[in-house]
Amino acid sequence: MAKQARAADDGSAGDALGLLRLSANAIAGERPVFRGVLRLLEERITSGALKPGARLPAERTLAGALDVSRATVVRAYRELESRGLARGYVGRGTFVSAGPDGSGAPFAWRGKLSASALRSGDSVIRDLLRASSDPRLIAGPGGCPATDGFPIDAFRASLDRVLGGAHRELWGLGPTEGLPPLREAIARRFGGRPESTLVLAGAQQGLDLIGRCLIEPGDTVVVDRPGYLGAIHTFRAAGARLVGWDVVRHDLDELEDLIVRYRPKLIYTNPTFHNPTGWVMPMQVRQGLLRLAARFRVPVVEDDTYRELYLSSPPPPSLRSLDRQSLVIYVGTFSKMLAPGLRLGWMTAAEPIIEQLALIKQRADPHTQSLVQLVVADLLETGKFEAHLTELRAEHRRRRDALCSAFKRRRASELVSWRVPDGGLYLWARLHARIKSSVVLRDALADGVGMVNGEVFYVDRAGEGEFRLCFSSIPTSQANAVAERVTRHIRAARADVASPSPLVAVG
Amino acid sequence: MAKQARAADDGSAGDALGLLRLSANAIAGERPVFRGVLRLLEERITSGALKPGARLPAERTLAGALDVSRATVVRAYRELESRGLARGYVGRGTFVSAGPDGSGAPFAWRGKLSASALRSGDSVIRDLLRASSDPRLIAGPGGCPATDGFPIDAFRASLDRVLGGAHRELWGLGPTEGLPPLREAIARRFGGRPESTLVLAGAQQGLDLIGRCLIEPGDTVVVDRPGYLGAIHTFRAAGARLVGWDVVRHDLDELEDLIVRYRPKLIYTNPTFHNPTGWVMPMQVRQGLLRLAARFRVPVVEDDTYRELYLSSPPPPSLRSLDRQSLVIYVGTFSKMLAPGLRLGWMTAAEPIIEQLALIKQRADPHTQSLVQLVVADLLETGKFEAHLTELRAEHRRRRDALCSAFKRRRASELVSWRVPDGGLYLWARLHARIKSSVVLRDALADGVGMVNGEVFYVDRAGEGEFRLCFSSIPTSQANAVAERVTRHIRAARADVASPSPLVAVG
Repeated sequence: MAKQARAADDGSAGDALGLLRLSANAIAGERPVFRGVLRLLEERITSGALKPGARLPAERTLAGALDVSRATVVRAYRELESRGLARGYVGRGTFVSAGPDGSGAPFAWRGKLSASALRSGDSVIRDLLRASSDPRLIAGPGGCPATDGFPIDAFRASLDRVLGGAHRELWGLGPTEGLPPLREAIARRFGGRPESTLVLAGAQQGLDLIGRCLIEPGDTVVVDRPGYLGAIHTFRAAGARLVGWDVVRHDLDELEDLIVRYRPKLIYTNPTFHNPTGWVMPMQVRQGLLRLAARFRVPVVEDDTYRELYLSSPPPPSLRSLDRQSLVIYVGTFSKMLAPGLRLGWMTAAEPIIEQLALIKQRADPHTQSLVQLVVADLLETGKFEAHLTELRAEHRRRRDALCSAFKRRRASELVSWRVPDGGLYLWARLHARIKSSVVLRDALADGVGMVNGEVFYVDRAGEGEFRLCFSSIPTSQANAVAERVTRHIRAARADVASPSPLVAVG
Repeated sequence: MAKQARAADDGSAGDALGLLRLSANAIAGERPVFRGVLRLLEERITSGALKPGARLPAERTLAGALDVSRATVVRAYRELESRGLARGYVGRGTFVSAGPDGSGAPFAWRGKLSASALRSGDSVIRDLLRASSDPRLIAGPGGCPATDGFPIDAFRASLDRVLGGAHRELWGLGPTEGLPPLREAIARRFGGRPESTLVLAGAQQGLDLIGRCLIEPGDTVVVDRPGYLGAIHTFRAAGARLVGWDVVRHDLDELEDLIVRYRPKLIYTNPTFHNPTGWVMPMQVRQGLLRLAARFRVPVVEDDTYRELYLSSPPPPSLRSLDRQSLVIYVGTFSKMLAPGLRLGWMTAAEPIIEQLALIKQRADPHTQSLVQLVVADLLETGKFEAHLTELRAEHRRRRDALCSAFKRRRASELVSWRVPDGGLYLWARLHARIKSSVVLRDALADGVGMVNGEVFYVDRAGEGEFRLCFSSIPTSQANAVAERVTRHIRAARADVASPSPLVAVG
């Protein structure tokens, strides 16, 4: 008995025959005969009685047990193989290759996912987007500017102008690279040349294109530590090994060491009002980074999502503007300057690289929506965009100040450290006690305040006591409520840590 | 001399030393010394004097020639390696691994493209999109409905309603799967359930997600022959081997044979008003296809882009509606029912598959633009969409009839065969004489008429004498002009074939 159980665990052929409980009766009357054999085997595999990896009985053995010809068994095994349920190996036998997987996927789909899909299993971003669109929250976890200040009147006026214009351009197919009026307006306002500008459905699409264009599974990518979780996900799903460069220290020796040790394919950085920390890379670090990139021929992806969202004075020049060797791929977006819901961004790089990225975009998303391209081009050209940005900065300043004051009033500095950000959208905080931010975040979310756990920004599982709060999405009228709830949940979590639950008496 | 030339071709070490023309003077004065050696080697590689694959001199030899220590050369070689310019192999020496490639890409980028990017080199779609947005054409090559009939007033009314509504949903981050009002409206109007509907930025995005989710390089995909070129590109770029199933014969034995021979990962088909032929798969073929798919466990991608664009009676049921085993991934789009420029589509499939596809979408395009989602949901809910479709069908009928009549008046049937399509957007034609359609198309394009060469729809280089003309994009007022130009260019090309150019006398 014990021996038989072990045999079952091994999935040996003798066992398979046992599990099949086959007899000539099992297929009596089915014609052609091989179909009966096939049905029997398929049922056992589908039910899980025969598990993946189990060896099927030798053809001769099964033929004997069922009282059919060996050719019939051979035919049934071939059919099983062609259905992806078994696989034959010369000299070793035929093995079950699929079975119920508990994922709930219909049986026909088992084992069909690509390696790339299997690397995409992490749903943090999707969950974050779901939570961000939950109207019950008073603060959303996603990165969002003050959208209640969206310039709706200017937007409508631009819409009217565009809808009154040429329809072929608006409704017909458009060029993959983007419509000329927007490419030109972007180049005039944000730098780069129209010919080396590729219009995107948001910055994230740009990162995905870069991943597809440059990364092979096994390549190394240096990313900010902590760093933007969308970049982490995208490069990881492309099969990259990620190594983090500490953005708080911004140590060029560390970067050189990483480059020499890992020979990265890319350096990804968000140097200006960094997500999640709000840091700005100093000028000499920018120059040093570019020197290293040139010396070791490593392309640099500059994610410049937050540049225009300064709260006091404009930040230092972009890496792109300092780059003399066409090493920088620059990614920009209107998501934080206008609204994430619009899905509009762009990238610039050396023209042959933009050309290559456009060839990849053409099959993923032949062109970005024409209407939003023309409306935003109009907002830029009429100066309405600039006026909006000025107002947006002022509103973000008010929101940052209201939230920081509210935290001060609640004596939050007893619980948590943060640095008042000078731009961007986020407050990045570190808990004092050895409290896991995940506990605080879970309770705060249930209480209507969405934040993001520090861990998701690190490629090396650090960040346990850190979290990100998007100050720009919290109206000043809600600042007190948010600060009250956050500090209350931290205090509660601290109390739990301080007084661990007593041992439960047994018996 | 001859011997030396051969040595150069071999890229032998002796030759490398010769080509380097090294002497101690070449690096005189540079400190640290290894930098001088490095600069020298890098210059020779960048200039192309040292070609990829060339072996560098042995460390000892080079040290002797330059009068430096061997350690200095070792350090320079290591640095070359870390810059990706050379690669050392134990016991064999150090070899140049990068060089100028003539692509025009900046030197820093050489050799950085991924295998996937290198499979994306075909620019047919991008060129087609460029041409389609060229206002000088009286007929565009891309697939486009009668966009001058776009329901602009209904669209504006819906826009107004949406812009007057809740702003958080509109401007903030949205769920990856799509906004609930649109998912529900799509399910009500087009079938499927809201929970198993994923909103897309167009059908092409859906095909790309399917490619990423299911295809490994080397997998086989069965596609229509001829078939939609966007699908061909996308699956090919995903690394698939494509085999064509003849859609004109629609022979189920042929399909079974393909499945048994190639064990495909997917079957992709556009069974209803097929692009490019306009054919409709008969009901018994639909059923037979699903039986084969179930028997061999092969998922089926049903591209149902043209279903609603019938010109007489509605087509047979979709594969999805006949599928009892959750084998079908269904792709739909508003591109041909409203406008391609909107970039809005959707897909449905078994929920676990939709979930997986959404996880891949989240990193390529976190969510589809909210504004267009809500506006189209409003058009669907208010019945304006339905009224538009009825008008669009009538306009397409007029355009098809005007063009076919114009071709008849020009006696086009002497030159070309076609079948009057019963739906969809295209006229698919075959030239009688042994004329290459590429010649006709080139001349017609120069004359303002864009068509697509038959060859791009075939995975096996057939289609030389076929071409596709998008009748729906040609206003009735232009039908005569288009027919006149097309027939004129075919007659001219035929005359060229009939009387080949005389031999040119030599001397």
